[in-house]
Amino acid sequence: MTVASLTPDQPIGVFDSGIGGLTVVKEIKRLLPNENLIYFGDTGRVPYGNKSKSTIIDYSLQITRFLESKGVKLVVIACNTATAHALDAVRKSTSLPVIGVVDPGARAAAEKTKSKRVGVIGTVGTINSKAYEKALHKLSADLEVFGQAAPLFVPLVEEGWFTHPATSLIIREYLKPLENHRIDTLVLGCTHYPLLKTAIDRELFSSITLIDSGEEVAKDVRTVLAKHHLLNPAKRTESYRYFVSDLNFRFKELGRMFLDEPFDQVTLVEWPS
Amino acid sequence: MTVASLTPDQPIGVFDSGIGGLTVVKEIKRLLPNENLIYFGDTGRVPYGNKSKSTIIDYSLQITRFLESKGVKLVVIACNTATAHALDAVRKSTSLPVIGVVDPGARAAAEKTKSKRVGVIGTVGTINSKAYEKALHKLSADLEVFGQAAPLFVPLVEEGWFTHPATSLIIREYLKPLENHRIDTLVLGCTHYPLLKTAIDRELFSSITLIDSGEEVAKDVRTVLAKHHLLNPAKRTESYRYFVSDLNFRFKELGRMFLDEPFDQVTLVEWPS
Repeated sequence: MTVASLTPDQPIGVFDSGIGGLTVVKEIKRLLPNENLIYFGDTGRVPYGNKSKSTIIDYSLQITRFLESKGVKLVVIACNTATAHALDAVRKSTSLPVIGVVDPGARAAAEKTKSKRVGVIGTVGTINSKAYEKALHKLSADLEVFGQAAPLFVPLVEEGWFTHPATSLIIREYLKPLENHRIDTLVLGCTHYPLLKTAIDRELFSSITLIDSGEEVAKDVRTVLAKHHLLNPAKRTESYRYFVSDLNFRFKELGRMFLDEPFDQVTLVEWPS
Repeated sequence: MTVASLTPDQPIGVFDSGIGGLTVVKEIKRLLPNENLIYFGDTGRVPYGNKSKSTIIDYSLQITRFLESKGVKLVVIACNTATAHALDAVRKSTSLPVIGVVDPGARAAAEKTKSKRVGVIGTVGTINSKAYEKALHKLSADLEVFGQAAPLFVPLVEEGWFTHPATSLIIREYLKPLENHRIDTLVLGCTHYPLLKTAIDRELFSSITLIDSGEEVAKDVRTVLAKHHLLNPAKRTESYRYFVSDLNFRFKELGRMFLDEPFDQVTLVEWPS
């Protein structure tokens, strides 16, 4: 299969270690309403953050083969950890275009910052991988990058505590060091965080610009599809299909929250072990 | 190997999905200072909470074989999820005495409560398993049991925010429904929670008694060893050995926090995959 043999009506493939990647799906659906889409959430093996690089590569390649078998025309890795560890391996393994979640956010931040001081918040795994720092330095060697792990943000989002007084206190605690570093741009380096965007915006100095990686990924998807003449000109029937590797407690409720619409027609995939 | 062939100087084996079980180790060391101990933390596969029952049984049996190979005289499952799903399977698989973390806490709560209204806090997995509810109802059918999942407690403990204002707000949010149910006894149903005991005590009605499962497990270990004449009368050399399946970021720092003393001499175990 080569890119030349692909057709515009084929779906976009998106995967994540869980269902946080649905915030990226939401942005792709918003920007590219004609596109069909297949999502895979590895809910049975979430989180990837504490797994080794080789394990994350194995899982990512397995999921990429699954998406290929469903006839996707492009693969989006909507997971910061999988992007940090497996983007190169996935690219090498397929002739399809592959978009990770780190580069688009880094590019937007490098374009926005005037002070050349950029903050990144993410999970412990993402911050320790220094994936954003490397991506930002590739774009502009003179940027100063300040990473801050925010382990409480994912459970806060999953609890749905967007306006809770505790949420404000936690946001302030994590962002204080970044403000002290006088950043003017902050990358939300985790697919869960767009749901805290309003709350973060409320607590942050108004001079700091927030970068939502999901929005930037959607723009990249549009650019790459256009380049290959693969943008779907019109859609006959709505086709969004969701696959998960485990039907976890609350996955429907959480999926609805991330997607901002009903998270239905979800199919369980049982991997051959 | 039968119980009759065991000797008092053999170590106690303890395992957990991660390193939270070190709070149980701390209580065993405090109550039984003569005992030698081997700990296994499955840090490479943590958390167990979102894994299937059969996977948790497989992992628990594998770890039990590992502890047997190290010559332990008793196995403590210091993990609520593994106890809920795998206690019976582990017991069937070995001739060693096996102690889980649920029954001792449930027994202490059933003894303490006067109002017959008991609260349990734990991870989503533990609360959904209804393990404490079942254990409490086996002890006394007329107890009313109120479970409350507290997903923010584990990351709060791992952040070390024991006196943070956000911690007070979060504790109040989770405990309010239990106070409204007029419980008089509250089981800390997660091995991470003893570190929040002081903070919880500060926020909770003073009439509510907190049950720390770790303390109760240590008492059970003493009872079972005494019954089999396996209490170590004296210890020649200090022998505590710690094994983990992944050397995670911060595991030493967190281990020290849970154990309340240096967490050193940790050996990485690489499973044959």
